[in-house]
Amino acid sequence: MIQAVAWKGDFLQLIDQTQLPEKLIYLDLHTVEEVFQAIRDLQVRGAPVIGIAAAYGLCLGMRDFRGASRKDFLAQLQQRIEYLSSARPTAVNLSWALRNLQSQLENLPGGDAAELKTRLLALAIELHEDDRRRCEAIAAHGQEAVPENARILTHCNTGALATGGIGTALGVVYRAHQLGKNIRVYAGETRPVLQGARLTAWELLAAKIPAQLICDNMAAALMQQGQVDLVLVGADRIAADGSAANKIGTYSLAVLAHYHRLPFYVAAPLSTFDMNVATGSAIPIEIRNSDEIRKVFGKYPITPGEVSCWNPAFDVTPPELITGIITERGILSPPYSKTIEQTINHTMLAGG
Amino acid sequence: MIQAVAWKGDFLQLIDQTQLPEKLIYLDLHTVEEVFQAIRDLQVRGAPVIGIAAAYGLCLGMRDFRGASRKDFLAQLQQRIEYLSSARPTAVNLSWALRNLQSQLENLPGGDAAELKTRLLALAIELHEDDRRRCEAIAAHGQEAVPENARILTHCNTGALATGGIGTALGVVYRAHQLGKNIRVYAGETRPVLQGARLTAWELLAAKIPAQLICDNMAAALMQQGQVDLVLVGADRIAADGSAANKIGTYSLAVLAHYHRLPFYVAAPLSTFDMNVATGSAIPIEIRNSDEIRKVFGKYPITPGEVSCWNPAFDVTPPELITGIITERGILSPPYSKTIEQTINHTMLAGG
Repeated sequence: MIQAVAWKGDFLQLIDQTQLPEKLIYLDLHTVEEVFQAIRDLQVRGAPVIGIAAAYGLCLGMRDFRGASRKDFLAQLQQRIEYLSSARPTAVNLSWALRNLQSQLENLPGGDAAELKTRLLALAIELHEDDRRRCEAIAAHGQEAVPENARILTHCNTGALATGGIGTALGVVYRAHQLGKNIRVYAGETRPVLQGARLTAWELLAAKIPAQLICDNMAAALMQQGQVDLVLVGADRIAADGSAANKIGTYSLAVLAHYHRLPFYVAAPLSTFDMNVATGSAIPIEIRNSDEIRKVFGKYPITPGEVSCWNPAFDVTPPELITGIITERGILSPPYSKTIEQTINHTMLAGG
Repeated sequence: MIQAVAWKGDFLQLIDQTQLPEKLIYLDLHTVEEVFQAIRDLQVRGAPVIGIAAAYGLCLGMRDFRGASRKDFLAQLQQRIEYLSSARPTAVNLSWALRNLQSQLENLPGGDAAELKTRLLALAIELHEDDRRRCEAIAAHGQEAVPENARILTHCNTGALATGGIGTALGVVYRAHQLGKNIRVYAGETRPVLQGARLTAWELLAAKIPAQLICDNMAAALMQQGQVDLVLVGADRIAADGSAANKIGTYSLAVLAHYHRLPFYVAAPLSTFDMNVATGSAIPIEIRNSDEIRKVFGKYPITPGEVSCWNPAFDVTPPELITGIITERGILSPPYSKTIEQTINHTMLAGG
């Protein structure tokens, strides 16, 4: 199995995702500045992987701390966290992961700088392990949604390249294939950045899972012809009512699945749920530069240069279009405002 | 106004559409072989334009006929028609236009080769003029569907580059703009061949019509945000029940418009109706090469090289998703099996 991110004892190793699918290049990163650049330049992408990479980056950024003072250590930690978070200001998982490590360190009773340094690395490794376990649990619970011989339509990249483990939506796919369910996958190319064409297609080929790539506008015709049994996607953020923000094009697939009476599943860890956001309309949508549409991979122009584009990075799928949300605690069903709250509360009580 | 195709007295002039939007290059074609190549290499595209270009190409192919025999003339004509039709075997309009000219020539009472030659050119010019008039009539009738301040979503290219006149769906847009309706256009880029990004965006910029380009998977989010008032597309072939085959992605927009309760109009001349095809499921769909998806413009790879793709050129929108079909005889409403038959019969009786 591919590993998007790996801690190698004293440095961080990443797959340079900007080079895929042409070349499989591993980056060995030894400093916090190198990690900052990798995050900023999208060499590492996918919400969980960014958080994990940043956590290891923070370890690299504190490695050279020489004093003994706990206070000075925590002050430099704060600086490094702000620095790393600024690499991608809109990536919620990035600052969330770093602030989480920070609060855990701060809550440690006593301990000098050396102890904090050791503890920081342990926390980063635990964050990574935790993500790996969550992926495994999502993959296991997701099997309930995947019948034998299922033809699964997916979008964007939610696999080993996007997580610390086997993935979320694509993790469910991997597991179904490993279990011998004779599945077949259709991957939407996911314009404008083409994560489906570049990354998901690459992962599926590497895993030898029967798959075909389609342009995003072909999904409806595929469903019309009875070639799809279910849609399975990831999520970047889920509101308390079950509205799911995900890569642009996801909402389109949800409407099309609804019209064709196909199940539409979202697979995401509980860390994706944002209970501070009540409904989908409260989720801010990042509008990105027109050049992402005008030039494929930032270099191949496909339009008149001066044309204006509307380029939202995400869309929001309302709860009524979602059949189930596959989490590490099981598949949540409607009404989501109730099942999400129950699951989150139970998980917090259980300390999970 | 741009002219995709123009007869220049003794040669045919075309805009080389493979060079757009980077360069506006006019091709001066003096032989039938040059016209064959232009059609085969997609330098000219759009069903009506192909038919018109082929008709002029046929004139060029008969220009050097030296005998006086009507029979020999018609024999060479038959050869040239077969030759030109083979440039794009699946383009229905191409062989239709040529066979139509042929039957009109054959039905002329008497006339030697010289007379047939003169008459052939007159018929080609008339075919072109006829298409121009149909575009004008579609544009006029279409205004009923376009309110003031309308925000119109369109797909593929259906404008001056695709027809002998101002276009079908985009012709309606041009006319609405000329009438000062303060419209705004969203153009879907139309993967895989990107006719929207390359051609429609270019036409809209040239005409100074307020417009934005979107990736095809953004249409749903745009509708969800209340930014679209109607969808307006063309058609390649319409069955007797009103099912409309058009560029892949059209059916997707029809389902999305239905879900968002938006009007969905198809604009097409009556020549698009194929009364020999009873329903949409009887329309054959051309599945094209994976490379069209794998490489943008046939040269920029965006996927792992060996990935399999499903690449249908068209999809079929069922009549129940179509609000109206804008023709040169007015807007047809459901039930289409009735209104189409009435219109076609009336037009045939009126000799139109």
